[in-house]
Amino acid sequence: MNIMQSITRLSIRLILLFTVIQFLLIPETDAAEQPNFVIIFCDDLGYGDLGAFGHPTIRTPNLDRMAREGQRWTNFYVGASVCTPSRAALLTGRLPIRSGMMSAKRRVLFPDSKGGLPSSEITIAEALKSKGYATAAVGKWHLGHLPQYLPPSHGFDSYWGIPYSNDMDAQKGFPAYRNEAHRNADYSPPIEQYQVPIIHNTQVVEKPANQHTITARYADKAIDFIRSNQKKPFFVYLAHNLPHIPLFAGKEFRGKSARGIYGDVIEEIDAGVGKITTVLKDLNLDKKTLVVFTSDNGPWLPFRTHGGSAGLLREGKGSTFEGGMREPTIFWWPGTVIPKVQMELGATMDLLPTFCSLADVSTPTDRVLDGHDLSPLLLGKTTKGPRNEIFYWRSSELYAIRIGPWKAHFITQGCYGIGPKREVHESPELYHLENDPSEKYNIAENHPDVVASLVKAAEDHRNSIEPVEDQLAKR
Amino acid sequence: MNIMQSITRLSIRLILLFTVIQFLLIPETDAAEQPNFVIIFCDDLGYGDLGAFGHPTIRTPNLDRMAREGQRWTNFYVGASVCTPSRAALLTGRLPIRSGMMSAKRRVLFPDSKGGLPSSEITIAEALKSKGYATAAVGKWHLGHLPQYLPPSHGFDSYWGIPYSNDMDAQKGFPAYRNEAHRNADYSPPIEQYQVPIIHNTQVVEKPANQHTITARYADKAIDFIRSNQKKPFFVYLAHNLPHIPLFAGKEFRGKSARGIYGDVIEEIDAGVGKITTVLKDLNLDKKTLVVFTSDNGPWLPFRTHGGSAGLLREGKGSTFEGGMREPTIFWWPGTVIPKVQMELGATMDLLPTFCSLADVSTPTDRVLDGHDLSPLLLGKTTKGPRNEIFYWRSSELYAIRIGPWKAHFITQGCYGIGPKREVHESPELYHLENDPSEKYNIAENHPDVVASLVKAAEDHRNSIEPVEDQLAKR
Repeated sequence: MNIMQSITRLSIRLILLFTVIQFLLIPETDAAEQPNFVIIFCDDLGYGDLGAFGHPTIRTPNLDRMAREGQRWTNFYVGASVCTPSRAALLTGRLPIRSGMMSAKRRVLFPDSKGGLPSSEITIAEALKSKGYATAAVGKWHLGHLPQYLPPSHGFDSYWGIPYSNDMDAQKGFPAYRNEAHRNADYSPPIEQYQVPIIHNTQVVEKPANQHTITARYADKAIDFIRSNQKKPFFVYLAHNLPHIPLFAGKEFRGKSARGIYGDVIEEIDAGVGKITTVLKDLNLDKKTLVVFTSDNGPWLPFRTHGGSAGLLREGKGSTFEGGMREPTIFWWPGTVIPKVQMELGATMDLLPTFCSLADVSTPTDRVLDGHDLSPLLLGKTTKGPRNEIFYWRSSELYAIRIGPWKAHFITQGCYGIGPKREVHESPELYHLENDPSEKYNIAENHPDVVASLVKAAEDHRNSIEPVEDQLAKR
Repeated sequence: MNIMQSITRLSIRLILLFTVIQFLLIPETDAAEQPNFVIIFCDDLGYGDLGAFGHPTIRTPNLDRMAREGQRWTNFYVGASVCTPSRAALLTGRLPIRSGMMSAKRRVLFPDSKGGLPSSEITIAEALKSKGYATAAVGKWHLGHLPQYLPPSHGFDSYWGIPYSNDMDAQKGFPAYRNEAHRNADYSPPIEQYQVPIIHNTQVVEKPANQHTITARYADKAIDFIRSNQKKPFFVYLAHNLPHIPLFAGKEFRGKSARGIYGDVIEEIDAGVGKITTVLKDLNLDKKTLVVFTSDNGPWLPFRTHGGSAGLLREGKGSTFEGGMREPTIFWWPGTVIPKVQMELGATMDLLPTFCSLADVSTPTDRVLDGHDLSPLLLGKTTKGPRNEIFYWRSSELYAIRIGPWKAHFITQGCYGIGPKREVHESPELYHLENDPSEKYNIAENHPDVVASLVKAAEDHRNSIEPVEDQLAKR
C-alpha cells in the first residue's frame, strides 16, 4: 500500500466518520419537525362536565392529568352550536356559513340529506397530506353520508365510524328520547331502536351499530392506526358520537359513575383518552404529538340528567349564549406545550392554521380562513393570542359577536328544545364575559360606544360572507 | 487511676453515649406527632370561583397547586348559609342551632348585638390547647365583639382582625351596596364609609380598618405567628373578611384580574395562600402541617359582578340550595394527605374531630358533636367517608336534609336578597345530587320511599335539638 493509497483510505474513513457524526447531529427524526396530531372530539359535552372544569361527581383523571401537564383553555369556542356546522368549521378552519354547511332550512344533515362538505373545501387532513401525513377519521362524521362526502373523499386514508348522529335512523320516532318517559329513564335503550350503521371507509360493516361497545372501539381504532403509522407523521381525528343521546356505556363503565349513565359515558371516554396517551408514551411519541381535546357544542339540556352541564355558562346546545358554543378544551404535548390555564380566545377553526404552522404547511390563500395560528401561545412564545373576535352564527344569521371581553347579542335563543324562544333585539344586549361569564347582566345602556363598535364589526363581518350553495337544504 | 475508676469512667461515657443515641433515635420532634393546623377561611366565596373548581377568568395558581398536591373536596358543606352560624359550626364541630348561634330573629350578629359564642362551647383552639398548641385567630371573627366573646376568651393566644362583617358600621346606610348605583359600580368605596375596627386581642388598634391592605396583612400576621411558633405545634385560624362586599384589593392586585375587582380580591387571597405554603416549606414545616381552605357560605348574588359564582350549583348565600352551603374545599399536607378528587361528604364541623384525631386529643363527650373524623379519608386509609348526612338549617328551621345522594327540601328560599321567596313544601321536593348537582329535577313523585325515609330522618334529627338561649337575638 503506497502513501497515496493510505491517504485515500484515511480520507474515506474520515468522510465516513464525519458522515456518521453529521447523521448523529441532525434532528432526531423528521417526525420531530413534523409533529403528529390527535384531535379527540366529543359530542354535546358541556363546559362543566370534566373534573378539570369543576364537575363535582364525574371522574376524569386522564383528562385532568392532560390539563395539568398541558394547557387548559377556558375561552375556546366552536363554529356553531350544533353538530354538522361545528364539525365543518373544525375541519376546514372556516365558518360553516362560508362552506354552505350552515343553513336556515335545516340545522344539521339527516339520513335523507343529499348534501355534504363540498370537495372544494380543504380539510386539515388534506392540508397535512402535502407533507406526507398518514390520516385517519374515527367516529362520527356528520358531514355527508353519501360516498362523495365521506372522509376518504376529504383527505383521510381511512375511516371507521357512524355517518351521522347516534339518535338518527330511529325506529320509534325521531328521536325517541323526546318522549318524557324516556327522559326520566336512566337506561340505555335497545340498540335496535337506532338503525345507525358503522361505515368502514365507504362500506357499511355493522347495522345497527353496537353502541354499547362503540366508545371503546373508537379508542382502539385510533390506537391501531397510531401503532401502524408510528414511523411517519400522522393525524387522527377521533370524533366520539357520545355523550350525544341516546347514552350507552361499556360493561366496565356501566353503573360505575356517581353521575349516572351520563357520567359513565364521560368516564369511558376519559379512559380511552388515557389509553391513547399511554400508547403515545409507550411508543415514545408523546414528545412528538399534539393532542387536542374538545367538543362540538354545549350540552343538550332538555334530556335532563341524560344531558350534560355547561357549568357556570348560560344555556346549552343550539344556543348562542356561551353554554352552547364554549367548550372545555385541553392542548397536550409534553415538553412543548407550556402548562398553563390559557384564558386567551381560541376556536376549533384555529386548529387548521395551528397544525399547518407546526407542520410547516402553507395554509390555503385562495379563500377566507377564519382560523388563527395558536402555536405561539401553545409554545409560550407569547401571552397575547391572535384571536380577538368570536362570531356566533345560528342557521343563516349572525346572532352575536364577541370582541375581547365584550359580547353583543343581536338575536337570542335558548338551548335547542328547552330554552327561551327566539328574540330579536332592536338594540343589542351587551355582556362583559370576563366579569360576567354567566351572561347575567346586560349592561348595554352603560356602554353605548362599545355597543356601536360591536354593531359595526358585526356588519363588516356579515358583508364578508359570500353566498354559496346550501348543503343542508338538499334532500 | 485504678481499675474501678476506669470502669466508672467508661460506664459514665457509655451512659452518655447511649443517652445521645437514644436522643437521636426518638421521633424528630413532638411536632411530628402533633401536626400543625392552618385553616384559611373565605367569606362569601362561591363554589365556582377558583380555577381548580372551573372558573374561566379568575387565576388561582396557588390554590390550584394545593388542589393537585392535596385533596379537592367536591361535596364539602358549611353549617349555615350565612356568616355567624357558619363560623360557630366550624369552630365548635356542632350545628349552630345547638349553641344558640342560629336564630329566627336575626341571621347574624350586628354591631348592636349583645350575644356571642357561649363560653361553654369548646372550640378547636381550646381542644388543641390541651396538647400545648399555640393558637392564633387572624381575620374576621363574627362570633361576638364584646370582650368575653372575642378569640382570647375562646382558646386563642392571640387575635388580630375585624370583629364582624366588613360592611357593618356603614356610615351611609346598611350596607351602602344595596343601592343599585353601587351594585353597578366597579370600584372600592372610600374606607371611611365603613367604620369597622381592627381589634388586637381585645383592643381596637385601627378604625376604620384599612381594607385595601387588609388581605395582605392577614396573610402576613398568620406568617409572623407561624415563624414565631415553629418550634411547637400550632393552629392558625385565618378568616379573610373578603370577598364579602364591599370589595378592596391591594395595589399589586387592583385592576389585574380579568374578572374585575372580585377577581382581584380572590387573586390576592390566592397569593397569600402561596406565601403561607412557601413559608411552611422554607421552615420545613410543610410535611407537618395540614392546611385546609374553604369558605363560610356561598356567593352573595344580588351584588352582581361584585358577588361570586356558585358554578353549576343552584342559588347562593342565604339559601339552602347547594349554592348557599357547598364550598370549594382543599386539604393539603404534602406526603400525608393522599392527592385525590374527594367526592365523599364532608363539612366544616368535621374539622374539630379530624384535628383532634390527628393531634391525639379526646373530643368532648358531654355534648352532641355533629362532626366526624375525616382523617382516614385524608390519609387514604379508607375510600368510604364517615359522613352520610347533611342538615340544612336556616334561621331556626330545618329546611332540607341530604342522605347519601338524596336531598329533600321541606322549605326552599333563594339567595339572600335576590332569590325566590320562602316556600313551605307540604310534600318535600326531592333531588338526586350526584346525577343532578344543579337541583333541576324534582323527582319526589318517582321515589316515595326515599322521601319517606328522609322525612323520618329529618324528624329524628329535629328531635335531637335541645332548646338553648338565642345568642343572636340579644341586643
